[in-house]
Amino acid sequence: MKSSEPFIGMHKTELDTPALLIDLDKFEANIQTMAAYFTTVNAMLRPHMKTHKTPIISHKQIAAGAIGVTCAKLGEAEAAIHAGIRDVLIANQIVGKQKIARLINLAKHSEIMVAVDSAENVQAISDAASAKGANVRMLVEVNVGMDRCGVEPGKPALELANVIHRCPNVSFEGLMGYEGHTVSRRDRTERTAAARAAIQLLIDAKHYLEKHDVAVPIMSGGGTGTFNITGSIPEMTEVQAGSYVFLDSTYGNVEGVGEHFDCSLSVLATVVSRPSADRIIVDTGLKVLAKEFGIPQPIGVKGVEMTGLSEEHGKLQVSDENVSLNPGDKLEILPSHCCTTVNLHDRYYGIRNGIVESVWEIAARGKAQ
Amino acid sequence: MKSSEPFIGMHKTELDTPALLIDLDKFEANIQTMAAYFTTVNAMLRPHMKTHKTPIISHKQIAAGAIGVTCAKLGEAEAAIHAGIRDVLIANQIVGKQKIARLINLAKHSEIMVAVDSAENVQAISDAASAKGANVRMLVEVNVGMDRCGVEPGKPALELANVIHRCPNVSFEGLMGYEGHTVSRRDRTERTAAARAAIQLLIDAKHYLEKHDVAVPIMSGGGTGTFNITGSIPEMTEVQAGSYVFLDSTYGNVEGVGEHFDCSLSVLATVVSRPSADRIIVDTGLKVLAKEFGIPQPIGVKGVEMTGLSEEHGKLQVSDENVSLNPGDKLEILPSHCCTTVNLHDRYYGIRNGIVESVWEIAARGKAQ
Repeated sequence: MKSSEPFIGMHKTELDTPALLIDLDKFEANIQTMAAYFTTVNAMLRPHMKTHKTPIISHKQIAAGAIGVTCAKLGEAEAAIHAGIRDVLIANQIVGKQKIARLINLAKHSEIMVAVDSAENVQAISDAASAKGANVRMLVEVNVGMDRCGVEPGKPALELANVIHRCPNVSFEGLMGYEGHTVSRRDRTERTAAARAAIQLLIDAKHYLEKHDVAVPIMSGGGTGTFNITGSIPEMTEVQAGSYVFLDSTYGNVEGVGEHFDCSLSVLATVVSRPSADRIIVDTGLKVLAKEFGIPQPIGVKGVEMTGLSEEHGKLQVSDENVSLNPGDKLEILPSHCCTTVNLHDRYYGIRNGIVESVWEIAARGKAQ
Repeated sequence: MKSSEPFIGMHKTELDTPALLIDLDKFEANIQTMAAYFTTVNAMLRPHMKTHKTPIISHKQIAAGAIGVTCAKLGEAEAAIHAGIRDVLIANQIVGKQKIARLINLAKHSEIMVAVDSAENVQAISDAASAKGANVRMLVEVNVGMDRCGVEPGKPALELANVIHRCPNVSFEGLMGYEGHTVSRRDRTERTAAARAAIQLLIDAKHYLEKHDVAVPIMSGGGTGTFNITGSIPEMTEVQAGSYVFLDSTYGNVEGVGEHFDCSLSVLATVVSRPSADRIIVDTGLKVLAKEFGIPQPIGVKGVEMTGLSEEHGKLQVSDENVSLNPGDKLEILPSHCCTTVNLHDRYYGIRNGIVESVWEIAARGKAQ
């Protein structure tokens, strides 16, 4: 069923399962809390859309003060731009003829910006943009220690910035570095030291470019786990945090992060079997709940632990035989990784005071290209 | 893009990525091999649709000799029945008013059969079926050692069969037990012993029911890992194997299974960055490749190992510096778990001799209800 009408006004426990729920009060508070933080520092917030993949949520983040959106994929950028958002960063490399053609088309309807880490890619985008009379803004991605994409700081970053400056129809806007290897370290002191060391590499790169007369207007990085570490560094101009809107159990346990936000996302499950006093089976398996960050747990039910997730089932171990969950009963599961969990669902049910207030299609769900 | 026309006739390397490919020759051979096996034993094949979620593939399996389909979810059964398939088993408990209403509707257009493991659930389905003048066929699910759903063998199974016999508009058809805890054990001797011990519990339950004058026409169980173990047991009448159509790397490494089938599914990836001689980054992360059974590996590329999968990226370690993969180059990744990987994609590209021959929408993708 595509239409949202039948659901609006229902109590959440009347929804069939599995269903992806947003607690709207907590979700809105998360957006406000993050927005308020970014009024106190130099950096601005450019929230990552890969978490929620839904333009109306990006619009809420922008209404609260964010400067635009960060995307992982062209399909997300298309969803955002078609929904009227113009300031979009694709924080990954866009490679190949078909994708570059889509990027150029988007550049005609937005101020799109893209991460690059090779001269060949800059040249290919410049050629395509020139042919269409478009302009594409570029950030040079610098490897700040995660050892994924990105050029090394120093000379390689300078050389790539100079390639961009020499190429027509593309513009060098600054540097990007993601300290992803540090964002989920639970200990605050350790995480702060690691993130600062990583971002220092980006700052060193900026100074190196400036010494060679290349201005670096934009400095982009950061995630939910480092929003008030990377976000407080004066050289940074943009932070890409995304998960804070939902805050899964993994980030909830990160010291210095979990205190600021509330977990607003859950997956509603139904008990389908209670074969014995100590075992409960629910209808939420790996096709609706990601487990790469650990097995998700039920919310607010004592004496019950989810011990296994198979394709279609969750298995709960009951340590208190008085737990009265039986087939047909519903419970909410807290995701351990919100981003990959959202990508398994087609829509959100927005809940306030227990009632379905809104149904949002996840426009960029599965848009992996 | 929903339409398949632009893709038909393209070479597979012209497809944008990530893309889910089927090698049609291998896929068809897998269907034929399994069908041929089931002409030699008493049991019949009822392939599980949760693997491919696509009615045209079920139709191909039926055309080769399968008696119908097995489904995990109502959404899959709806896709199958809307595509004209009538003999459908939902091998899980269907619980709750909304789902039971959908089940009854399907019963009006098919000979649908469902697994049950509680008297309350039987009663609820019987009540709803009576009200609509429909009939629902039932298998009593027996716990054969996986400790998930299912009643215990012996008296509990008999009692539930008797409940079904007493309730109107539902019919007891037999027993089902899934030896899922045994199917992926690599060692053939060990797997055989474990599967036989598990299925013996189902056979014991059958004998117990028969001793109490309850006939057990259907005995259903088995998976790809036990197709020729459970499938060869004379008491078994149906086997629910599903993964054999694609055979992921996990089942490919199961001794006595991998020899019979070929891996026919892959995810086409593009290299998006080659930051150093020893590191390659591709555009296939956790949103297009499941990793709960291990990190998937590239096919036919020597000197390269996928060492990490993050949300949007795969990281490959290069041990041979002569590996000439650079940004824009494409490679195929072999899934380690085909079922959860398929659920991340919207369509298959069927490939023969390198050319796109067919594009199949994955009709039940994400149909988790």
